Amino acid sequence: MANAYTSHFGINNIPYGIASSAKRPQPQAATRIGDDVIFLAELATHETFKAMETDLPALFSQPTLNAFASQSSQTHSAVRTAIQDAYNDNLHTPSSENIADVTLHLPVSIGDFTDYSASANHVLNAGEAIMGTRSFPPAFHKYPVGYAGRCSSISVSGTPITRPLGQYIEDYTASEKNIVFGASRALDYELEIGAIVGRPVEPGTFLQAKDADQHIFGLVLVNDWSARDIQGLEMNPLGPFNGKNFGTSVSPWVITHEALRAHEVPAPERMGPVASFMDDKGAVNYDIQLTGAITRGKKTTTTCKVGFETMYWTFRHMLAHHTIGGCGLRTGDLIASGTVSGEEEHEHGCLLELTKNGKKASKLSDGSELRYLADGDEVTYEAVIGDGSAGVGFGACVGVVKPASKV
Amino acid sequence: MANAYTSHFGINNIPYGIASSAKRPQPQAATRIGDDVIFLAELATHETFKAMETDLPALFSQPTLNAFASQSSQTHSAVRTAIQDAYNDNLHTPSSENIADVTLHLPVSIGDFTDYSASANHVLNAGEAIMGTRSFPPAFHKYPVGYAGRCSSISVSGTPITRPLGQYIEDYTASEKNIVFGASRALDYELEIGAIVGRPVEPGTFLQAKDADQHIFGLVLVNDWSARDIQGLEMNPLGPFNGKNFGTSVSPWVITHEALRAHEVPAPERMGPVASFMDDKGAVNYDIQLTGAITRGKKTTTTCKVGFETMYWTFRHMLAHHTIGGCGLRTGDLIASGTVSGEEEHEHGCLLELTKNGKKASKLSDGSELRYLADGDEVTYEAVIGDGSAGVGFGACVGVVKPASKV
Repeated sequence: MANAYTSHFGINNIPYGIASSAKRPQPQAATRIGDDVIFLAELATHETFKAMETDLPALFSQPTLNAFASQSSQTHSAVRTAIQDAYNDNLHTPSSENIADVTLHLPVSIGDFTDYSASANHVLNAGEAIMGTRSFPPAFHKYPVGYAGRCSSISVSGTPITRPLGQYIEDYTASEKNIVFGASRALDYELEIGAIVGRPVEPGTFLQAKDADQHIFGLVLVNDWSARDIQGLEMNPLGPFNGKNFGTSVSPWVITHEALRAHEVPAPERMGPVASFMDDKGAVNYDIQLTGAITRGKKTTTTCKVGFETMYWTFRHMLAHHTIGGCGLRTGDLIASGTVSGEEEHEHGCLLELTKNGKKASKLSDGSELRYLADGDEVTYEAVIGDGSAGVGFGACVGVVKPASKV
Repeated sequence: MANAYTSHFGINNIPYGIASSAKRPQPQAATRIGDDVIFLAELATHETFKAMETDLPALFSQPTLNAFASQSSQTHSAVRTAIQDAYNDNLHTPSSENIADVTLHLPVSIGDFTDYSASANHVLNAGEAIMGTRSFPPAFHKYPVGYAGRCSSISVSGTPITRPLGQYIEDYTASEKNIVFGASRALDYELEIGAIVGRPVEPGTFLQAKDADQHIFGLVLVNDWSARDIQGLEMNPLGPFNGKNFGTSVSPWVITHEALRAHEVPAPERMGPVASFMDDKGAVNYDIQLTGAITRGKKTTTTCKVGFETMYWTFRHMLAHHTIGGCGLRTGDLIASGTVSGEEEHEHGCLLELTKNGKKASKLSDGSELRYLADGDEVTYEAVIGDGSAGVGFGACVGVVKPASKV
């Protein structure tokens, strides 16, 4: 167990994912402790699991986590403890394989994907990069502003991302704003965390922010790849579309709400009054420390280090706002936070902020210039609780940029 | 067969839907001719259907049309002819029930829902109603501007719509722009047509506009219910969210591309040059004539009569633009046109346009004033090819407004 990943996948984590292998070709539910991937349909045939009323081997045999995610928090809690006990009693060996022998798949079937913009710093930094002014959209202090994203192009970490083609303004500084068609010249990443909905919320049921935790199964890392030039032209007035819908990456392991709640930290103070359903005196984020890095020319440069405690709106607020109009939430829905960004330059969670929309070049450790992503660049996110000593982390979310296709 | 619906469901239509009944409780594929709803898993056991290689009874037994919609155009064409032959030979009777005895369901499972804004008139009229100026967004002449909608709240015609709660600016004319929380005061409909994707488009495959028809299974009516006050506050900068995601209605019968293509009409002339993949010399709409009506106090008022031939961007353009960045399309995806609107007041496909965002009251036939929808208002859309003599129509898409819930 002695490797870098003990700080991510210790006994206090017990994340859930979907795995397959040469021995177990059918994708199915698994957890990870250290470098052991434990196939849960097999582990759950042990006596300790049989005491539970749920047919766990059947749930864990499915190719997505949805059926398990929809279970009650009591079941989730009992299963977590039973897995930890089984591991401590060394019962897991026959149902385990080394992480190196395993393929990981998208952990849930996602019926709807919402992407919010929950970081005050990101909103201010992005506005400054594009328009030169630091200001909030009119709704920002009342609720997290969000939009619906594309489900079909969400893929698991490791899936390459092809640079999109599209139409954009050739040169914003020119007096003539020519619109051209070609490969994006402003491919960016957005460092985000996403919540996976567990217990569904029926349409017309309103969540109070303070009660919304009970519908969060767990969290994943999200890379909301963005083509800033394509997005820039299309945003007015209906928001992002082709600038975002070509690909979204998520990390393979869902870190459960149960593992995270021991690591809650207070959310930033409110900047103004909110509606009653959004009022959450105990508003919390989690002590998740994120890093983003670019590998180019075989050298890796950390481009961002930021804490999730900086987020102005919490997942509880995001879920409550989502339901208040009557919109239901289904198990497996992905609700992403938007770019996580701090105030400092090294805390900027996307290149739009870091390079001021490509206007201010940054240096990578291979000596090359960074404005936006180049073909072949590999973007890696990692996130861990605190300093890593808790043994709870997300592992990595990785994607390499492939050159644009020919039309 | 002698009723108003022979102009919609004649022998040249052969639409597909999902139906159930007391006798046939399992939702399954059906078509409609006149008032006969024909259950297709049973009809397809006849010899004429057996010649086809596809296991049609298995496809038609499923609770959605997705598996059938994904078949080739050759299969769709052969099935259509076989149904027409079986009906003419009177073979359909044992597998038929009267429309009055049947419940209709959502026809497809929708993995992603895209809503475009393809009408030039709507864009100009809506801009005038909100901002007082008639102008196009920067991208309008290059491609249809669109956004991703919410899948979980799409429901079949007949499902009531509950007035949403949300946050909005209390009074735009006041100097202080107070944001309040409550039931929407500006509930609207949007009269749209939606395309259902048949054959999928693999991610990274680019459709040329001129070739995109082959991925359209058929069309439905769409009511993109909109809360203008909630939408107005949230739109900047990420587009519509809670102002739209509380409910979208679709008509139960999918009118196939095959039934419609005999009724193509030229699309409006291009107002400027477009990228090569969007160039479609033979750009066509369909001769679909739509009406929208409000029933209040037991009296029905037609609020809109408009032709689909007015749409600036066609479904072929919409599909091509959707794929150009690399985003795939899956069978069952719903791609809606945005509000269908003409130049004249009686052609305005939403109340935002008709009442100038509630500022100019219109009269309903019960004598009451119309600015936005009142609780109890029933909105009915109908659409038919040409003057109805072709016997090809969509039937109706209906929804009644229920009062907002208490928080």
